[in-house]
Amino acid sequence: MSLRTTLAHQLDRRLVQNFILGVIIFNAVLLGLETSAPVMAQAGPLILFLDQLCLAIFVVELTIKLFVRGRDFWRSGWNIFDFVIVGIALIPSSQGLSVLRALRILRALRVISVAPSLRRVVEGLVTALPGMASVFLLMGILFYIGAVMATKLFGSAFPEWFGTLGHSLYSLFQIMTLESWSMGIVRPVMEVYPLAWMFFVPFILVTTFAVVNLLVGLIVNSMQDAHAEEGNAATDAYRDSVMAKLEDIERRIGEMSDRKSS
Amino acid sequence: MSLRTTLAHQLDRRLVQNFILGVIIFNAVLLGLETSAPVMAQAGPLILFLDQLCLAIFVVELTIKLFVRGRDFWRSGWNIFDFVIVGIALIPSSQGLSVLRALRILRALRVISVAPSLRRVVEGLVTALPGMASVFLLMGILFYIGAVMATKLFGSAFPEWFGTLGHSLYSLFQIMTLESWSMGIVRPVMEVYPLAWMFFVPFILVTTFAVVNLLVGLIVNSMQDAHAEEGNAATDAYRDSVMAKLEDIERRIGEMSDRKSS
Amino acid sequence: MSLRTTLAHQLDRRLVQNFILGVIIFNAVLLGLETSAPVMAQAGPLILFLDQLCLAIFVVELTIKLFVRGRDFWRSGWNIFDFVIVGIALIPSSQGLSVLRALRILRALRVISVAPSLRRVVEGLVTALPGMASVFLLMGILFYIGAVMATKLFGSAFPEWFGTLGHSLYSLFQIMTLESWSMGIVRPVMEVYPLAWMFFVPFILVTTFAVVNLLVGLIVNSMQDAHAEEGNAATDAYRDSVMAKLEDIERRIGEMSDRKSS
Amino acid sequence: MSLRTTLAHQLDRRLVQNFILGVIIFNAVLLGLETSAPVMAQAGPLILFLDQLCLAIFVVELTIKLFVRGRDFWRSGWNIFDFVIVGIALIPSSQGLSVLRALRILRALRVISVAPSLRRVVEGLVTALPGMASVFLLMGILFYIGAVMATKLFGSAFPEWFGTLGHSLYSLFQIMTLESWSMGIVRPVMEVYPLAWMFFVPFILVTTFAVVNLLVGLIVNSMQDAHAEEGNAATDAYRDSVMAKLEDIERRIGEMSDRKSS
Repeated sequence: MSLRTTLAHQLDRRLVQNFILGVIIFNAVLLGLETSAPVMAQAGPLILFLDQLCLAIFVVELTIKLFVRGRDFWRSGWNIFDFVIVGIALIPSSQGLSVLRALRILRALRVISVAPSLRRVVEGLVTALPGMASVFLLMGILFYIGAVMATKLFGSAFPEWFGTLGHSLYSLFQIMTLESWSMGIVRPVMEVYPLAWMFFVPFILVTTFAVVNLLVGLIVNSMQDAHAEEGNAATDAYRDSVMAKLEDIERRIGEMSDRKSS
Repeated sequence: MSLRTTLAHQLDRRLVQNFILGVIIFNAVLLGLETSAPVMAQAGPLILFLDQLCLAIFVVELTIKLFVRGRDFWRSGWNIFDFVIVGIALIPSSQGLSVLRALRILRALRVISVAPSLRRVVEGLVTALPGMASVFLLMGILFYIGAVMATKLFGSAFPEWFGTLGHSLYSLFQIMTLESWSMGIVRPVMEVYPLAWMFFVPFILVTTFAVVNLLVGLIVNSMQDAHAEEGNAATDAYRDSVMAKLEDIERRIGEMSDRKSS
Repeated sequence: MSLRTTLAHQLDRRLVQNFILGVIIFNAVLLGLETSAPVMAQAGPLILFLDQLCLAIFVVELTIKLFVRGRDFWRSGWNIFDFVIVGIALIPSSQGLSVLRALRILRALRVISVAPSLRRVVEGLVTALPGMASVFLLMGILFYIGAVMATKLFGSAFPEWFGTLGHSLYSLFQIMTLESWSMGIVRPVMEVYPLAWMFFVPFILVTTFAVVNLLVGLIVNSMQDAHAEEGNAATDAYRDSVMAKLEDIERRIGEMSDRKSS
Repeated sequence: MSLRTTLAHQLDRRLVQNFILGVIIFNAVLLGLETSAPVMAQAGPLILFLDQLCLAIFVVELTIKLFVRGRDFWRSGWNIFDFVIVGIALIPSSQGLSVLRALRILRALRVISVAPSLRRVVEGLVTALPGMASVFLLMGILFYIGAVMATKLFGSAFPEWFGTLGHSLYSLFQIMTLESWSMGIVRPVMEVYPLAWMFFVPFILVTTFAVVNLLVGLIVNSMQDAHAEEGNAATDAYRDSVMAKLEDIERRIGEMSDRKSS
């Protein structure tokens, strides 16, 4: 037990925290250097060794945290986040899975879990998500319906864009971002189906309107949060003092009329 | 009459509601599977049969609703919405109208009318529309004027883009979304009419300004709604208690001076 | 003088107003039909005659207004707007100036000056402009500086895009709208000047940031206007009643202590 | 010392300020004319001479300012801004560095430091930046991670777009602005790596969400500033008067009960 508390103290020390932050940044730089062929040609083995060293430090840190915190470790989303990210790096990537190698840079995301100001921003963004769940669900339904219709209507003539549900979903996402929607997709489609605009123009109007409403919801929410924090401290103090004054006056008047009656 | 009330009770039961929701989702998945050629090759008849079954359930549900509610049925926009969507599916699509077949996926939109949280989002979006009617009307006028001018000015040289009013409206919509407006449309036009930018650049500025004002109007409206709901409950309670205290003090003072006079 | 007042009364009558509105809309439809070759082939002379008739009605209306209002006519921006728009149509367009013919559709804009709800929207948009004058001026300076730099740096190699100040201004406007900025302009430029991104990327960041600030300014302004209108009526009434109560209490206490002293 | 104060007075005179403003604008026009080949062919030497004259005036003005203000000169960011901009023009550009010649137009930016209304806008924009530092840092991390991953995954097959970290950063910036992201970049990449959308679509969603949050933060901040300025003056005056009245009533009641007791 004594070892646990000692380690817990050590982990919370500013020096240790900053050391970990330094290792994360150093590791991110290493992984950036790995993308440069000339650098790898000259100092490849050194960079790979230092990368392994950084990984080892992370593994040790997480192991200590797991030992110290026990079950509490899994209660924090940030700890799970760290665990998964470090875990990815431990999967043997020698089997030619270049994707897993590329995912190692995700370790740089650990900066967010270590730096409090970044943590607050991400937590702010994430807490905004549930309030938008209904609009997301609605957009999901619109995209699904749009994809089924597009596949049935245009799939046979334009298999590259609307051949399967997946292709249609991707193309509709592109159209929603307004990227080359007309010159790239809809004008060619209209050469075969002249009325295709009756599907695509309403789709654009409806989905951009939904996106705009997501934005409006975000603005109104954070405005209200800001509003609630700010104005109320001053207002509440004032209200309390008015109430105190009024009760004081009432009490004194009460005393006066009581004394008179007696 | 007894049958009506029994059926009305049955319809409102949670179990029945959830069953209908399940059928809608199952039907949407079926219609999604229909877009996949290999799936249809293997289980085509089964899927088509299940689709007919879902449709039959919807028809029975709507018939009961019509019987139970009578004339009130038509007072709810959501009921008319359900009626039209199910009605589309009943139009015989054997005449090669593949569009009608594609429209059957619109049945998935019934999820919205059944799930209350989605219903609220859509009602929120729809109630925001009338407040923007003037700006929409203004944009309609701008588009009509722009289309007439573009057709007269550039129609003969660029029939594909501005040959008719319809072509011009579509091209101007594309230009308003800023999709390929310059490289795709205006630069080629300027090679024939070097001053064409004097039409298109102001058009872009005016229409995007109008769109931005739609957005601003939306934000201000929903902010006010949120504001009105939130702050007032607390403020009103406080105001009432201050007023009550003041009236109490006034009454007591009145009593005191009355007693003295007597 | 009696004629003037009679005419003024007639002009303000609802029936006359609606008649003028009807003529404007009818005229807009006529000008739309003029863009259709088959319609003109069949009913060309009739349409042109009706167009002349509409124009004659406008001229009569404006002449009467000018006679009735006298100098006051010129004090309203809307009257000047009507005068210019009708005036354009009177310039002889037989000299092959097809632009002037195209401008005749601007008469449809008269709908705005006649319909009060549209008038209010436009007035709202126009009154928002002065508050943004500083940001517009700043953007003008940024565009001028950007255009001079782009012309000097890239003008010789890309005369089509940056050959003159005018070409550069147009290209920079296109880049600000993010249309084909990279694939269309900057990537080709970077093949000659690999560091061109050091000019274009900051330009995009600065101008879009300025545009975003225009938008933020618009939102904040209309929010404040809405806020000022709404909340204050209720708050002021409450404040007045609290103050009245307090003054009443004070007066009564004053009377009590006066009576006692006497 | 007498000379210093005289010069300081002269510098602050309205006439001198307007003269400098005039010189800045005149200089900006000159530099604009320099981009026109026909103008330079006719009046080249004159324009270059006038440009040198303007520069000389700026140098004299700054030298006087430096002499008058002494060390205080360096405390204002605007003075340093002026110093750097004029300094750039003094670097000998005869060595064929056409970039330095192009940078001379930056002198036109001095308009901002001289005109108070523009100064206020820029200061407003700049003071908004620190509040967004965390989101900027977060986006920097996202871009770095995205660039490392894109380089490792797609670098070998698409060296032009993702060959080095720098190329990837530029391409990801283009993708974030949604310019040709699909037709230009992602569709070609998907022909080699069919699952590439699993990298790019989330990247677009995350970065645009972060940009939207920057915007929301900006709106909320400036709304609060506007709110704080506006409403409080009236509210505070009312609060003070209510408090004064209440204290007055309390004091009088106190006197009454004191008198009675005595």
